[in-house]
Amino acid sequence: MRFVYFFGNGYAEGDASMRDILGGKGANLHEMTRIGIPVPPGFTISTEACLRYLKEGTLKEDLVEEIVAGVRKVEGATGKSFGSLKNPLLFSVRSGARVSMPGMMDTILNVGLNNDTVRALAESTSNERFAYDSYRRLIQMFGDVVFGIPHSEFEKAIEQVKGERGVESDIELTVYDLKKLIGLFGDIYEKYGVVFPQDPWEQLFTAVEAVFKSWNNERAKVYRRIHNIPDDWGTACNVQTMVFGNMGEDSCTGVCFTRNPATGGKGLFGEFLVNAQGEDVVAGVRTPEPIERLKKKMPEVYNELERYARILERHYRDMQDIEFTVERGKLYILQTRAGKRTINAAIRISVEMVEEGIIDRATALLRVEPEKLDQLLHPMVDPNAVKCFFVKGLPASPGGACGRIALSSSYAQKLAKHGEKVILVRPETSPEDVGGMSVAEGVLTARGGVTSHAAVVARGMGKPCVVGAGDMVVDEENRCVKVGDVVVKEGEWITIDGTTGEVYLGKVNLVRAEPSEHFKKFMEWADRIRRLKVMANVDTPEHAKIAKELGAEGVGLCRTEHMFFGEGRINVMRDMIFADTKEKRERVLSELLPFQKEDFKGIFSAMEGLPVTIRLLDPPLHEFMPKTEEEIEAFAKERGLSVEKVKERIQQLQEVNPMLGLRGTRLGILYPEIYEMQVRAIIEATCELVKEGHRVYPEIMVPLVFSVREMRIMRDLIDRVANEVMDEMGVKVDYRVGVMIELPRAALTADEIAKEVDFFSIGTNDLTQTTLGISRDDANRFVPLYLEKGILVEDPFVGIDENGVGKLVEMVVKLGKSAKPSIKIGVCGEHGGHPKSIHFFHKVGLDYVSCSPFRILGARLAAAQAQALDYLSDKEV
Amino acid sequence: MRFVYFFGNGYAEGDASMRDILGGKGANLHEMTRIGIPVPPGFTISTEACLRYLKEGTLKEDLVEEIVAGVRKVEGATGKSFGSLKNPLLFSVRSGARVSMPGMMDTILNVGLNNDTVRALAESTSNERFAYDSYRRLIQMFGDVVFGIPHSEFEKAIEQVKGERGVESDIELTVYDLKKLIGLFGDIYEKYGVVFPQDPWEQLFTAVEAVFKSWNNERAKVYRRIHNIPDDWGTACNVQTMVFGNMGEDSCTGVCFTRNPATGGKGLFGEFLVNAQGEDVVAGVRTPEPIERLKKKMPEVYNELERYARILERHYRDMQDIEFTVERGKLYILQTRAGKRTINAAIRISVEMVEEGIIDRATALLRVEPEKLDQLLHPMVDPNAVKCFFVKGLPASPGGACGRIALSSSYAQKLAKHGEKVILVRPETSPEDVGGMSVAEGVLTARGGVTSHAAVVARGMGKPCVVGAGDMVVDEENRCVKVGDVVVKEGEWITIDGTTGEVYLGKVNLVRAEPSEHFKKFMEWADRIRRLKVMANVDTPEHAKIAKELGAEGVGLCRTEHMFFGEGRINVMRDMIFADTKEKRERVLSELLPFQKEDFKGIFSAMEGLPVTIRLLDPPLHEFMPKTEEEIEAFAKERGLSVEKVKERIQQLQEVNPMLGLRGTRLGILYPEIYEMQVRAIIEATCELVKEGHRVYPEIMVPLVFSVREMRIMRDLIDRVANEVMDEMGVKVDYRVGVMIELPRAALTADEIAKEVDFFSIGTNDLTQTTLGISRDDANRFVPLYLEKGILVEDPFVGIDENGVGKLVEMVVKLGKSAKPSIKIGVCGEHGGHPKSIHFFHKVGLDYVSCSPFRILGARLAAAQAQALDYLSDKEV
Repeated sequence: MRFVYFFGNGYAEGDASMRDILGGKGANLHEMTRIGIPVPPGFTISTEACLRYLKEGTLKEDLVEEIVAGVRKVEGATGKSFGSLKNPLLFSVRSGARVSMPGMMDTILNVGLNNDTVRALAESTSNERFAYDSYRRLIQMFGDVVFGIPHSEFEKAIEQVKGERGVESDIELTVYDLKKLIGLFGDIYEKYGVVFPQDPWEQLFTAVEAVFKSWNNERAKVYRRIHNIPDDWGTACNVQTMVFGNMGEDSCTGVCFTRNPATGGKGLFGEFLVNAQGEDVVAGVRTPEPIERLKKKMPEVYNELERYARILERHYRDMQDIEFTVERGKLYILQTRAGKRTINAAIRISVEMVEEGIIDRATALLRVEPEKLDQLLHPMVDPNAVKCFFVKGLPASPGGACGRIALSSSYAQKLAKHGEKVILVRPETSPEDVGGMSVAEGVLTARGGVTSHAAVVARGMGKPCVVGAGDMVVDEENRCVKVGDVVVKEGEWITIDGTTGEVYLGKVNLVRAEPSEHFKKFMEWADRIRRLKVMANVDTPEHAKIAKELGAEGVGLCRTEHMFFGEGRINVMRDMIFADTKEKRERVLSELLPFQKEDFKGIFSAMEGLPVTIRLLDPPLHEFMPKTEEEIEAFAKERGLSVEKVKERIQQLQEVNPMLGLRGTRLGILYPEIYEMQVRAIIEATCELVKEGHRVYPEIMVPLVFSVREMRIMRDLIDRVANEVMDEMGVKVDYRVGVMIELPRAALTADEIAKEVDFFSIGTNDLTQTTLGISRDDANRFVPLYLEKGILVEDPFVGIDENGVGKLVEMVVKLGKSAKPSIKIGVCGEHGGHPKSIHFFHKVGLDYVSCSPFRILGARLAAAQAQALDYLSDKEV
Repeated sequence: MRFVYFFGNGYAEGDASMRDILGGKGANLHEMTRIGIPVPPGFTISTEACLRYLKEGTLKEDLVEEIVAGVRKVEGATGKSFGSLKNPLLFSVRSGARVSMPGMMDTILNVGLNNDTVRALAESTSNERFAYDSYRRLIQMFGDVVFGIPHSEFEKAIEQVKGERGVESDIELTVYDLKKLIGLFGDIYEKYGVVFPQDPWEQLFTAVEAVFKSWNNERAKVYRRIHNIPDDWGTACNVQTMVFGNMGEDSCTGVCFTRNPATGGKGLFGEFLVNAQGEDVVAGVRTPEPIERLKKKMPEVYNELERYARILERHYRDMQDIEFTVERGKLYILQTRAGKRTINAAIRISVEMVEEGIIDRATALLRVEPEKLDQLLHPMVDPNAVKCFFVKGLPASPGGACGRIALSSSYAQKLAKHGEKVILVRPETSPEDVGGMSVAEGVLTARGGVTSHAAVVARGMGKPCVVGAGDMVVDEENRCVKVGDVVVKEGEWITIDGTTGEVYLGKVNLVRAEPSEHFKKFMEWADRIRRLKVMANVDTPEHAKIAKELGAEGVGLCRTEHMFFGEGRINVMRDMIFADTKEKRERVLSELLPFQKEDFKGIFSAMEGLPVTIRLLDPPLHEFMPKTEEEIEAFAKERGLSVEKVKERIQQLQEVNPMLGLRGTRLGILYPEIYEMQVRAIIEATCELVKEGHRVYPEIMVPLVFSVREMRIMRDLIDRVANEVMDEMGVKVDYRVGVMIELPRAALTADEIAKEVDFFSIGTNDLTQTTLGISRDDANRFVPLYLEKGILVEDPFVGIDENGVGKLVEMVVKLGKSAKPSIKIGVCGEHGGHPKSIHFFHKVGLDYVSCSPFRILGARLAAAQAQALDYLSDKEV
């Protein structure tokens, strides 16, 4: 078995395919060398060497010999000599695992410097200060990494010297100071009973061992557990020639992107510093020059850089972020990687690379993160604005919003009436708060997770929302919000960033990105390739219109209960709940019918020609009851009831576990008149519109079914009422009947249920609650801990739990389609807008996903990506 | 195709195997005739004729011809003639479906009587009153069944005649009155525009049509839907000669059992009436004579009856309940069926029939209802006692109990201290009531179902319990209990019957049945055959002892949380909940450790040599907090906390859906110190007992797991603590680690989880809650309606939902055993004691069931029956 792989001067013993033994960084260095990129020569010690070292505790003779041979080859390639006093060869010694674990493991630079070679370096660079600074850095890093001397010891010494000199920054230290510092560092070593090795070889071997050992340091282990990286991979170790951009006016260092990472525009984009090291850029003392200047200063180097940029971009088939150094007129590429970019740039680059023939469309589609498409829709908190941090919660609905704090729905509405912008701030929200949410710019809650009521409703409304800001106390009595000692009164300004979960005091500037021509072309490609349809979860005509504009192919979930909360409706609904006979209930329900019909007509019109899936009443009745003492008194007074009577009824409706209680189709079985009214409203609305020449396709959906027998009763009810209405109105219309699959038993018996319905809509929210036994209202008590401990890899209410809930979803598809091949199956839980989950839904063969309007762009792209991946893997085979 | 099957005089065209076309009753009549039993001759019209009639709406010529031919054969067999004035042949016309649907369809008796034949009958019976009474009954039944004339019309006429005569009962009406009544009935017919047909043939055909039509009457349809009987079976129609036991002193009628149905003792047991009809027995005017007297009065008939009884018992291989009539010295057997019997009789008969070689042991085991075995353990409400009914609830834990009403746990304990018997009466119970329950004779609640807290705890304690007595209001303020206007004060006597759900005012006598030698032999057979082991759910040493006496083969579920509610413990537990650091919690937990250890030692000792499965803490912490204002104040005062602080903590612990909240292993992950203490207590107890020479086999069980990753953490924790303790105590002990499978996700990933554990215990209670999405605390709001509508065939918390939850149970066995063949799998939910569910568990291959002590006998028998069925079906093949 060999352990050491050389690269340099156009020749490399490894290549990109050897990630497993060379690590990601190593394989990349070999690959670049192979394709003619001038990479500083070096060698990679394999992960197998690491594993052996960790097992045996020593590098062993054969490995030492291979390392020595590697150093000799590098000497040959560079013309420098390791430990030489003439032109000393210096090495960086870096970790590099199969996948990137940024910052988790150790690195030592400038290996090879000692009391002698430092002088040689000073001479050859004509920069004594640089040489001694490099040396003190080596000593410092070595002490920290190899001997575990606390960082603070060295920092203290530096502070001491700076104090003596009366200067503020490291850069102001002179050669004299640095030499003194090196002396002080020696004292620190002594204090810890260790000695800095003057022998460059000892430095090198010890550094390699330190890198290997760092695979098992605590933070690396935690990182691996969280990211599911096996402990037995090990890390490779890259030993590479140090090159210096500070060897005179013919040297420089810089970074550049192969295209503009902000706009996607073509051409190099970056900056450089003449006669400088990378650190100088970071230190920020000198201002780098834009890359165009390099063309003038070093035209040949610039042309070379441009050429390499082109090669790298074509080779890696993506925009690159390149680090380079020019040492005495010779260009070295130190690193290349896919460049980070804004969503706009990502789209433009993808589209243009297709046009340039660099990538195919499938690949182009995979280059844009679906989650970020919503940045094109929401105003964002200006990243450059000065902000005063207040509190952090969970990012529940993206975008930025500013407004005055309102602690109640009613106050929010009052402020809004006066034209004020409002942020509704609540401990948590309930359906009673919907009025306030609808007038607010954004919503902030102290409790709840990303699928809490506030989050779901806010996303549905497309409003920025931050939830679960646990450090925040909403003091409704004193009308203020507190975080620690910071107290903000109701009516004061606040800014929330629903994309990051951060909340700021005062007004922060918001910015908006504009969708481009590239974007339109890109989404057209996405729509052409994808198999999954994308529907919208909307409850109002306004949202239906937005959803259609964003490309929704219909409504996958319209929750009718929200229609009962409007003014003039909620009390009628309550009358229904107080009615003690079927007749009284029917009388009250007939008052609600015109409202529902109008709502449906609005949504049908907005979705002309597309299917609209309407869910019959789902929530437990107590959600419609007044909550606070005030509300109870107001309702009792208005309806001429005693407060006791109202409270008694509320008490009767209380349930220990409302999630598992009297709701969904159970209500429909107990009070068929409710569903009868709803079906009547749907079919009347349809008939009226069809008579006017509209194309309307209602799909009626029954919630929370666990048995085919419930569904049979409901199917009979729906067909009976629909036929009655069509007879009355003298017109036949198309309608479909479906069921929410949201309880494990429904999934397990999907074959039976399939026979009674035209479509399944899998409600993955409730299915997740029951399958995992987690109430999403209470999940915050332990889900964060479960994520931290790696018991959950992802919040199961955000991304579908493929291994558990996903098995039931697969079962639903298999059982459902085998019993009725024509059945349409989709998802309408929050997961329907989550890209990774959409990939899963594509894979298991669903027909559509449905999500809130502002996730539709992302869902369209994710669905396209799922298909693109199929296409690419087919091509590979 | 033929439709009519004759039987009579030892010859029958059908037999017992022809249930599908002759119906159950018909096939039985043919079978009896075939084996030489003197059955009144007749014929059966097949179910196929019924189906054709229902389709075509007419009997059609071919069928009419077959019926006429049938009548002719009967005339030949009886020497009587249909419609004749000499010795008129009369028929009963009865329905009879494939399975018995008692009282759902129609019957018409005395077909063939008219204004002429009634006189012939009067002459031949020398009983004019009987003849006219038979005739008026025919007219009445015919009007009701054929013409749909309301029953009340005829009743009114009867009342009118009785009024005129000034008599109270039908029996007092004279021939004159009856003739008058027949005239009045004629008027009623006229009022409805119909005429009673004088033609016997018309009567017969119309009666047959009416029987066929009654297959589709409303109550029959509902009955079929509830009992899952297909609509396309149809009913057969039996046309059989009427025989009369009132034709003189050489005639009689009677019923007899082939063995004593109360004791199981051998020999005929029954009664008869000379010169009487069956109705006379029912009317209760004359007192029937015991069957022994028949030996003296009609020795030949008696011998014949004894012989037929023997033949029937051997033929049907079971104790028979026989109806007979002697018409002028000739014995007719009218009906035979398996006789109902007490549990004691059932056992004795089964054992003796095996000894007599009539049945094998497998069959004997199947003859006793497991549910009834508990009657052998509980005192029962004396069925003969005079009772004053108060209210009815659900029978939750069998047996009868009397005591003084106590409306609170504390008052119950106070009364009990004074030696009073107590019935604890609560709206519903919570863990706080356990103290009161433990001193009470029985428990009565207004709310909750058969798996509510009260029911589960009462069954666990083996105490009679009635729950969900919805008509009852528990008025805690006025310290009384109300049902309508009846008010009973706290302290007054009440009697509950947990076997029927009935509650009586005052003290009702209780009786106890004694297990017999037959019983011991019977249970020995059961234990020898069964494959499933039977374990007990117990929480205390006392119950463990009882369980072992009842045959438990270990403890399948010991709930540790009940141990925290004792005096001197609950407040320590609360201290734990108030502790805000791990260190404080550990300090408080160390106070609880000795208590737990003693509890475990007690149970281990009681179960010497058998496995004891201990579940680590499961319920949410808020269950341990004080509930009422008083309790809160008391606790706050005792611990020097402010009431606000206590309330705040209670508030913090509240959850929207506690069932899906922070409980089970989630607590163990959040506060590992709790489980560490419990594991330490278990292993210390084990080590101490093992050192003393005892054989102890603890099995530690982790609740509410949904992911193998939780189980890995828990397995590590348990093994770590166990090894620590064993090292400290210097002894190695056996222990096993297992998991409750009670969430769908755990079932779906049972293969992964299996690798980390030694056993699975399927918690079917919680698994039912999550799979069906039903909170058992709230189930009463719609489950009764679901049962009524046939959506649920059985309460899913009583019998396992085979089609849904059962699929997950099967999956657990399949996945678990495939991943780890040695894994032990059982059930510890309430279904573990339910006979039908036990059959299912046997079938899917579980290793054991665990149930409350008082269900162990039944579980042992049910497990044996499941195996017996396998054995019998193997024999058949």
